Amino acid sequence: MTSIKDLARHLDISIGTVSRALNNKTDVSQETKSKVLKAAAELGYVPNQAGRSLSKGKTNVIGFVLETDSEGMMQGDLFFIRVFDGMQSVLTKRGLNLVALLSPSNVEPEAYLQQIVARRFTDALVLSSIHRNDARINFLNQQGMPFATLGRSLVDGGQPWLDLDFDGVVEDAIARLTQKGHRTIALALPRNDLNLRHIMIESYRKNIAKAGLQLDEDLMIRISPGDRAGVTLVHQLINMPQKPTAVIYSDHILPFGIYRGLADLGLTPGVDLSLIGVGTRLAAFLTPDLTYYRFNLFDLGVRIAEALLTIMDDPTAAEGRPVVRESVPFTFIEGQSIADLT
Amino acid sequence: MTSIKDLARHLDISIGTVSRALNNKTDVSQETKSKVLKAAAELGYVPNQAGRSLSKGKTNVIGFVLETDSEGMMQGDLFFIRVFDGMQSVLTKRGLNLVALLSPSNVEPEAYLQQIVARRFTDALVLSSIHRNDARINFLNQQGMPFATLGRSLVDGGQPWLDLDFDGVVEDAIARLTQKGHRTIALALPRNDLNLRHIMIESYRKNIAKAGLQLDEDLMIRISPGDRAGVTLVHQLINMPQKPTAVIYSDHILPFGIYRGLADLGLTPGVDLSLIGVGTRLAAFLTPDLTYYRFNLFDLGVRIAEALLTIMDDPTAAEGRPVVRESVPFTFIEGQSIADLT
Repeated sequence: MTSIKDLARHLDISIGTVSRALNNKTDVSQETKSKVLKAAAELGYVPNQAGRSLSKGKTNVIGFVLETDSEGMMQGDLFFIRVFDGMQSVLTKRGLNLVALLSPSNVEPEAYLQQIVARRFTDALVLSSIHRNDARINFLNQQGMPFATLGRSLVDGGQPWLDLDFDGVVEDAIARLTQKGHRTIALALPRNDLNLRHIMIESYRKNIAKAGLQLDEDLMIRISPGDRAGVTLVHQLINMPQKPTAVIYSDHILPFGIYRGLADLGLTPGVDLSLIGVGTRLAAFLTPDLTYYRFNLFDLGVRIAEALLTIMDDPTAAEGRPVVRESVPFTFIEGQSIADLT
Repeated sequence: MTSIKDLARHLDISIGTVSRALNNKTDVSQETKSKVLKAAAELGYVPNQAGRSLSKGKTNVIGFVLETDSEGMMQGDLFFIRVFDGMQSVLTKRGLNLVALLSPSNVEPEAYLQQIVARRFTDALVLSSIHRNDARINFLNQQGMPFATLGRSLVDGGQPWLDLDFDGVVEDAIARLTQKGHRTIALALPRNDLNLRHIMIESYRKNIAKAGLQLDEDLMIRISPGDRAGVTLVHQLINMPQKPTAVIYSDHILPFGIYRGLADLGLTPGVDLSLIGVGTRLAAFLTPDLTYYRFNLFDLGVRIAEALLTIMDDPTAAEGRPVVRESVPFTFIEGQSIADLT
């Protein structure tokens, strides 16, 4: 790699002159500038920030690792964009840039992360789509890369995390449904091994028991892949021997398929099947009104960025001092998608 | 900045040994490795890719510049994720990483781009949300940064571009609507100065004239900000002195608001108001079936990545040789959202 020093030596002029020539200062003659630029090109001098970041060890870039799984992406997209907005509002004030690192679906998540870390592409990372046993957490810890996670894992890296309160969603939903006389309540689960899936299962078992209902494992249904998941789910539910009167879910796109699936059969949401789960801004478009749980995703972005800055400012924070580890509460939005069976 | 040479001098061992120790090779003793790693930590040696990229002048990163305008983001999100999938499928084969560069809403798009370029963060860029007069195009040209645009501009940087055929959408929509007896056809326009907006206006004027209809400027309506744009639009339309029987649009989220707005008034899409425009996978959730134009966004991603690779492989391609500049055709999806008034 060619440095300014190398250029100066090669041209036999001072480092200061080379630097001023490269920066196009007025106190350097046009002739010298041309000579310097010619030599810079010949010797392969690249006057880039990479050099500066190397010396300071900083990139001023925060990476948000996003898995571009085309299957699940209908889920994540609208969701994360609001989180990004919130993060940006904090990071730009600190002169930090947010980039979304798109982990390709044909590359192992850990291998992708190794590449990112090896290249020292970012100062810190936020991981999403956290798995029950997420190897990425230990890896980042070993690498000394500051990071936070959106979601938690059985693997504890001492990192800050924020999680949406899916446990609370399932608990509140079961309480509301049983209060309205529902006794056969289905649970629609994410397909992959996200930690969220396990949280939902645990909460479902616990709260079905608490409500004095018999646990029926068949009511925990893994949703099918693709856009028609909600439509398929409707068919699954209405064909069960013990037909559920309600379904709880975590995927904010799913109710659109459920509404569509019901409409195709001449059935009405909140009458023929009750549904309640996590919703986003899109929920407001459904008729009849969806009953759902909303999270403030902008605020979630703000908080994850702040949690990350805390450990970046003080890397020892994770060792001893408390880091941010919180479940973000939901807001209940009353709609018309739950039938009163009492 | 501490180099391997500095470490070797400090430890009084050969550069080769230091390098092999840092790379954890088996022909170096554990003792030496520990000594080297300790010195590396003390002297602040950072074994990062920034150094390697500096010498090669390559980052192997392709940036997709995305504007995180929270207003418009309902529009862009689901849209771009599919484009990213397509791009990744091409880029990963070449060992290139795709990152989404999230241009913050409080920073001028050009200023943000200057920062990205100054940092030599990427080997090439793709710009989206192209404006009628887009200063970013000239800027990137001057900087010698290879780039392609998703959309075109009056500013021609000789760059490859791909654009969705919005001209064709408006033309086909007006033809279909007039054939079914519609004479008062509204056009819903994006709020900001995107080039797309101008393409739609031009196509509307041309094809309204071609259909032998009187041009009414009031029928070109700029959609209101926020999620309720579609709902608001319904109210605007039904309160016009010359009530339009149909509306054409480019925003794939808008029909959800229109359906909702009509439902609130007890009106039916395709009966009380006809609608046709650009749709995505979400369109399949609407009842009654939406009549819409679909673009293959994955394929769009593949093609923009390929167009970019062409000019990266041969930077002179833009000077003389043809670059990719194409309007991507739509697929018409027949639904029930257009009333037959004949």
